[in-house]
Amino acid sequence: MQTSRFSLGDENLKMIDGAGGEAVIRSLQDIAPDVGKYIIEFAFGDIYSREGLSLEEREMITITSLLTTGGCEPQLEVHINGALNVGITPQKIVETFTHCVPYVGFPKVLNALFVAKKVFAERNISITS
Amino acid sequence: MQTSRFSLGDENLKMIDGAGGEAVIRSLQDIAPDVGKYIIEFAFGDIYSREGLSLEEREMITITSLLTTGGCEPQLEVHINGALNVGITPQKIVETFTHCVPYVGFPKVLNALFVAKKVFAERNISITS
Amino acid sequence: MQTSRFSLGDENLKMIDGAGGEAVIRSLQDIAPDVGKYIIEFAFGDIYSREGLSLEEREMITITSLLTTGGCEPQLEVHINGALNVGITPQKIVETFTHCVPYVGFPKVLNALFVAKKVFAERNISITS
Amino acid sequence: MQTSRFSLGDENLKMIDGAGGEAVIRSLQDIAPDVGKYIIEFAFGDIYSREGLSLEEREMITITSLLTTGGCEPQLEVHINGALNVGITPQKIVETFTHCVPYVGFPKVLNALFVAKKVFAERNISITS
Amino acid sequence: MQTSRFSLGDENLKMIDGAGGEAVIRSLQDIAPDVGKYIIEFAFGDIYSREGLSLEEREMITITSLLTTGGCEPQLEVHINGALNVGITPQKIVETFTHCVPYVGFPKVLNALFVAKKVFAERNISITS
Amino acid sequence: MQTSRFSLGDENLKMIDGAGGEAVIRSLQDIAPDVGKYIIEFAFGDIYSREGLSLEEREMITITSLLTTGGCEPQLEVHINGALNVGITPQKIVETFTHCVPYVGFPKVLNALFVAKKVFAERNISITS
Repeated sequence: MQTSRFSLGDENLKMIDGAGGEAVIRSLQDIAPDVGKYIIEFAFGDIYSREGLSLEEREMITITSLLTTGGCEPQLEVHINGALNVGITPQKIVETFTHCVPYVGFPKVLNALFVAKKVFAERNISITS
Repeated sequence: MQTSRFSLGDENLKMIDGAGGEAVIRSLQDIAPDVGKYIIEFAFGDIYSREGLSLEEREMITITSLLTTGGCEPQLEVHINGALNVGITPQKIVETFTHCVPYVGFPKVLNALFVAKKVFAERNISITS
Repeated sequence: MQTSRFSLGDENLKMIDGAGGEAVIRSLQDIAPDVGKYIIEFAFGDIYSREGLSLEEREMITITSLLTTGGCEPQLEVHINGALNVGITPQKIVETFTHCVPYVGFPKVLNALFVAKKVFAERNISITS
Repeated sequence: MQTSRFSLGDENLKMIDGAGGEAVIRSLQDIAPDVGKYIIEFAFGDIYSREGLSLEEREMITITSLLTTGGCEPQLEVHINGALNVGITPQKIVETFTHCVPYVGFPKVLNALFVAKKVFAERNISITS
Repeated sequence: MQTSRFSLGDENLKMIDGAGGEAVIRSLQDIAPDVGKYIIEFAFGDIYSREGLSLEEREMITITSLLTTGGCEPQLEVHINGALNVGITPQKIVETFTHCVPYVGFPKVLNALFVAKKVFAERNISITS
Repeated sequence: MQTSRFSLGDENLKMIDGAGGEAVIRSLQDIAPDVGKYIIEFAFGDIYSREGLSLEEREMITITSLLTTGGCEPQLEVHINGALNVGITPQKIVETFTHCVPYVGFPKVLNALFVAKKVFAERNISITS
C-alpha cells in the first residue's frame, strides 16, 4: 500500500539521515514535491528496508557510490551524517574513501574527504589522537 | 560562409539563452575568445539551426544532457533560462528532471532541481498552486 | 496499492519497450527479480505514467540521458526501440543524438548512433532517401 | 621496502582476486608491466593491507565503485569473483548492486547484475531457491 | 567558407587517423552523414588545424580524454592509431596511459592499455625488448 | 625503500605543484594523513619520476584528465598552477582545453577555462595582447 511504503520510508529517512534528510525533502516542497515522495517511498521505503545488508553496510555503499559519481557533495554531506547516525565510526568513513583511491583516483577521493572534514568539524569529531 | 554561421548562431544564442548566454561569451573574451566563437558558430549556428527538432525539444534535450553529465550547474542555469525563454513551462522543466530519476538516480536530479529552484526564484516563478 | 503500480507499469513497459523490455525483466528473474519488479513499479508504474510529458518526450529524454551516461548500449538499444514504438521517427532519434554533440562531444554520440544503426537495420528502417 | 610491498600485495592479490587477478597482471606483461607492478604494490600492497575495514567490506566497496564508474565490466568480473573468494555470499553481492539503484539509476545496475549472472553461472552458483 | 573547412578537415583526418578515421565517416553515411561532416569540419577542420599545439600533443590530449571518459574504446582504437600515425612512439602512448593512474584509477587505465595492446598487435609493434 | 619514494615524491610535489600542492597535503593531516602520504609516494614519487614523458607533457595530460572527469575544479586549480610552474605557457593551457571540445563538449571545457581564468588573474597573467 502506498501509505505504508511512505510511512516506512519516512521512518527510515528520519532514523538514517536525520535533520539533513528531512531538510532535503522540505526544500523540494515548492519545486518538486513528488521527487521528495519518491525518495521516501522508493529509496527509503523499498530499498533501505530490504533485508540482506545492515544499515551500516547500506551507508558504506551509498557514500562509495556518491564519491565515485562525483559532483554530489551535498548528498555526500547528508550521507556522511547518515553513516555516523547508523554507527559507522569516522575512521571507517575515512577508510572507505581511502580504499577508493585505486579505483577512482585521488581527485574524487580528496573531494569526499574534504566533505567529511566539514561534517566532522560540525559534529565536533576529531579523528586523530 | 564563416560570417553567416556566426550571424545565425549569434541570433540563436540571443533568442534562446538571452543575457545568460551572452554573459558566457563575454566572459570568454579575455581567456579563450575562440571557444566563444565556436559556441556561436558550431553549437548555435550549425546545430541549433538544424531542422528536425523544435527549439523546445532542443532545450529539453540540452537540460537532460547537462543534468546527466553532472557538475555543469552553471550551464544548467543558462539553459533552464533558455528553456523558459523558448516557451517550455516551469512544470515541464521539473517533469523532465523527474523523468531522469530511474536513469541517473536521485542525486544528480536533486542538483538540477535546486538550480531550477534558483532560476525560478530569480524570475519570480512559482510552480505550486 | 502495490498491485496496481505493478499492473500499470507492466502495461507501460509492454506498450513502450515491447519485447526488448520484457526480455530484460525475464533475464533478471534468476539473478535479481526484485530489480525487475522495481523497474516495472517505479520506472514504468510511477514515472512513465505521470502527466506533464508525452510518451514521445519521455523517450527522447531517456535516450538523451542514456547517451550522455555512456556505457549503456544495451539499455540504449531497448529504448531506441521504445522510441520507435511510441512513434518517434528514426530521423528524430538521429537528430536527438546529433543535438548532443556540443554537450557531450563526438565519441558518445558516435556510440549511440551505431546502436541506432543496428536497431534500424533489424527493423528494416532506411533513413536516407 | 619495495620488495615487501610487492610480496604483501602479491599475496593479497592471489588470495582475493585469485586466477582472474593473476591473469590481469600477466596480460599486462608485454604492454605495461609497471602498471601490473603498481596494482600489486599500491592497490593490493598498500591499500588492501590497511586496517580499519574487513576484506569483505573492501570488496563490497570495490564492486560498488566499479558499478558506479560504468564501463568497467572486465574489472567488475574480476572483483565479483574476488568478493565471492573472500566470503561474500552471492545474495549479498546482488543486494549491494540493488542498493545502488536510487543513487545511479537502473541502467548501470543492470550492467553489473548481468556480469554477476555470468560469474555465478561459471561458478555453478544458483541464487534462487 | 564551408568548403575550405571541409577540405582542410578532410586532409587532417586522413593524415592523422588514416583508414580508421575514414571508416568512421563512411559508417555514418547511411545513418547520420551530417555528424560525419561536423567531425571533418569542426573537429579536424577548426580544431586540429589550430596553432599552439603540435599534432603529437593533440593526439596525446585526445587519448587522455578518451581514456578518462571511459566506454569509448572504438574511438580510442582510432586515436591510438592516430597517435602512432603522427609519430608518437608506442612507449609514449603507454606512458601517457600510465600517468593517468593517480587521476582516474586503475580500471579505466587497464581498459585503455588493452585497446593499445590490440592496436600494437595489429601493427606488429612489440614494445618490450 | 619507503623513505626514498617519499623524499622523491615530496621534492616533485614541491617543484611541480608548489604551495598549492603542499596546502592539499597539509589539509589532509587531520583527516586522512595516509592519503597525503600516498599522493606523495605513489603519484609524485612513483609516477611523476618515471621516464618517457617530460614534466610539461605530464601536466598537460593531468589537466586534460581532470577537465574530462569533471567536478574536480580544486585539483584543476592546483595543476593549472603546476602546469605554469613547469613552464607551460598560459596560451598552451588554454589551447589544451580548447582541443578537448570535440571530445567532451563545451560545458566541461568552460568549467576548466573559468578555473584557468581565476588562476591567471591571481598570477597577474594576461593572455590577450
